[in-house]
Amino acid sequence: MTSSARPGTPPLSSAAARQRDENHPLAAFRERFFLPDPELVYLDGNSLGRLPQATRTLLRDLVDRQWGEQLIRSWNEGWFEAAERLGNKLSPLLGAAPGQTIFADSTSVNLYKLVLAALQRQAPRRTIVSDSLNFPSDLYIMQGAADLHGAELRTVPPAGDGRFPDEDAIAAAVDDGTALLVLTHVAFKSGWQYDMRRLTEAAHAHGALVLWDLSHSVGAVPLELDACGVDLAVGCSYKYVNGGPGAPAFLYVSEKLRDALRSPIQGWFGQADPFAFGLDYEPASGVRRFTAGTPPLLSLLAVEPGLDLLLEAGMDRIRDVSVQLTSYLLELAEARLGPLGFTIGTPRDPARRGSHVSVHHPDGYRIAQALIRAGIIPDFRAPDGIRLGIAPLYTGFLDVWRAVDAMVDISGSGAHLELPQQTGGVT
Amino acid sequence: MTSSARPGTPPLSSAAARQRDENHPLAAFRERFFLPDPELVYLDGNSLGRLPQATRTLLRDLVDRQWGEQLIRSWNEGWFEAAERLGNKLSPLLGAAPGQTIFADSTSVNLYKLVLAALQRQAPRRTIVSDSLNFPSDLYIMQGAADLHGAELRTVPPAGDGRFPDEDAIAAAVDDGTALLVLTHVAFKSGWQYDMRRLTEAAHAHGALVLWDLSHSVGAVPLELDACGVDLAVGCSYKYVNGGPGAPAFLYVSEKLRDALRSPIQGWFGQADPFAFGLDYEPASGVRRFTAGTPPLLSLLAVEPGLDLLLEAGMDRIRDVSVQLTSYLLELAEARLGPLGFTIGTPRDPARRGSHVSVHHPDGYRIAQALIRAGIIPDFRAPDGIRLGIAPLYTGFLDVWRAVDAMVDISGSGAHLELPQQTGGVT
Repeated sequence: MTSSARPGTPPLSSAAARQRDENHPLAAFRERFFLPDPELVYLDGNSLGRLPQATRTLLRDLVDRQWGEQLIRSWNEGWFEAAERLGNKLSPLLGAAPGQTIFADSTSVNLYKLVLAALQRQAPRRTIVSDSLNFPSDLYIMQGAADLHGAELRTVPPAGDGRFPDEDAIAAAVDDGTALLVLTHVAFKSGWQYDMRRLTEAAHAHGALVLWDLSHSVGAVPLELDACGVDLAVGCSYKYVNGGPGAPAFLYVSEKLRDALRSPIQGWFGQADPFAFGLDYEPASGVRRFTAGTPPLLSLLAVEPGLDLLLEAGMDRIRDVSVQLTSYLLELAEARLGPLGFTIGTPRDPARRGSHVSVHHPDGYRIAQALIRAGIIPDFRAPDGIRLGIAPLYTGFLDVWRAVDAMVDISGSGAHLELPQQTGGVT
Repeated sequence: MTSSARPGTPPLSSAAARQRDENHPLAAFRERFFLPDPELVYLDGNSLGRLPQATRTLLRDLVDRQWGEQLIRSWNEGWFEAAERLGNKLSPLLGAAPGQTIFADSTSVNLYKLVLAALQRQAPRRTIVSDSLNFPSDLYIMQGAADLHGAELRTVPPAGDGRFPDEDAIAAAVDDGTALLVLTHVAFKSGWQYDMRRLTEAAHAHGALVLWDLSHSVGAVPLELDACGVDLAVGCSYKYVNGGPGAPAFLYVSEKLRDALRSPIQGWFGQADPFAFGLDYEPASGVRRFTAGTPPLLSLLAVEPGLDLLLEAGMDRIRDVSVQLTSYLLELAEARLGPLGFTIGTPRDPARRGSHVSVHHPDGYRIAQALIRAGIIPDFRAPDGIRLGIAPLYTGFLDVWRAVDAMVDISGSGAHLELPQQTGGVT
């Protein structure tokens, strides 16, 4: 379903954006989120998703009744199974049959566990292939795991001007000594969407396993892990899943590998029978074996309402609206920001991108700061990238219009030149 | 300060317990907790602490304002420093100067990181010494880390009847090939409190490092990590710290070792400059280098009100009341439960125990279930142990009286014999 403006309305106008929002296919979902400042334009759902209204209700019950009133009894009333139950609930968003996905730890810790487990399984193969556009901390984790195991990490450089990956070179870098190919499915800076099927097949042709980091994909683009034959995946739930700040991460281990891999972190929750208190570790059968310690229940259970909203809306509808919104954003950016010294750092081909768009400007940091002061929240990624995240459940066409319009105003007026240069900090 | 009954009141009576509660030195703290059922006798604060009233208020602000309203901006308004700030706030409870303690991950993951870091530091020493009364999952973690590193785990068997450790044998097991001694400071079943100073010195005499798991100690007994020369420690915050279900754990690395050790999990939050997005990992200086991924903020920040209550009450006062309550419980158990076939599994010497007491009965599982039905919540540890946890901030003498009185009633009447035998579950 296409959201369009009425004939006669100038297409690049706020009026057209308003008209497109009138038949925004997911408009009804916006009010399912807590919007204390309805004027705020929030384009950073790719860093921290918004708060679902249902999460507020759930947290009151969780705190007052489940913790405060039921106390330890809540472990027998759903807490113990929560990580696995929510993993199964997430599965349709990953294109995964149940029993392969579980919430646990952080993305970094999950990546560590699965990379080491894969290296041990793949011995004597001892090379990990990744690319240098991967999220840096994924590379740090791989490097640490490789050092422990005596393996080697090989990162493939990007193509051309350095913004986009070279998928041919990645496929060619996998050989019969490759233990594991590790890639992030949607790149954190450019929003490039890698060809999961092709690269998975290329790695399998050489007997390598494949691990995808889905942090910038889950809840933003439909995924087909089972159909693509993916072996392993990790991802976070605080971006498009709207699970809350630092919400627990998830991991996926394909059924065909699940009982053949062992986590190096042999924790209490991954033990076959945690309450037998035996002195020797025996991994649980099933995906629970990849968990470690007690999960942070407040943060874990808060993930569920965000999952429910995504499942209710459906990933195909979400993706359809996401493509309409990112296409509109790219169209506006090209027409209105191009002449002002901005360049676009995200693929024009919708099939090649996720749900965020990067625009670059030599003064990007100060422009991003000026946007925040104007009530428009993007994020900034050094050295010069302004990232604009589209979360179709609550992002509309007028949000996109306002963000671009404000960038035109700021860079035209030089309002950002009064702000200090970057000195550090998070955004 | 001793909480005593009035002269003339029979000492082993509910009247005496009520009188002792009238001058319970920490009585004012009880109403600082959410007590929706004032009749509930909760003796499982050693598994999951109660909900502080201030935590309910904090979580509303955290959810609605910090997440819902401020969104990503909250990272620059305290979230990024939270794990370190709360670690420093916890430090006085550990007897630790600031800068050595941080909240991160789970106890299991922290133990894994520090055991591996210590093994690497201590090469070519390759033995870990522990004892078989340690929490089983600590042993699982050590075994996994030892396997990866090519090290060996040696567990010292308990003394005599198997309930208490043999500290002489532990000290004697450390030799010049020992890399690391790992012990839990208060044993999870018996409540035995190990001699931290003596065992730390015994290990240091052979050049071994020492790691203490403080999960059953922190908030229950005063600790002196710095004064005892402890190298490493881990622990959880969901027991006596009242941080909430699965609340993030903490780790301590002595200042003298801090910058010489490296975490095997080279995560985003442990990187020197996470927002430079450099491709090579460089560990942060200070204790932040032992963190990995983004912490679960809802669960992490919920820890603070529990810390505040402990700091306000003071560990010396808490310990004093704890000893009065556990002594009273042991006195009652000996007089009233001994004749009914119960035995006591906790040291009589207060200096040798933490803040929970185990009583054993061949039908312990069903007696624990009957207690829960009667509104008295202990926990059960296979095969026959009923654990009664004393949390002086909210546990009173009448709670202890009621629990013992109910055990007398149940085992005298045989009420538990109608209940099913254990089939699993958490309790």
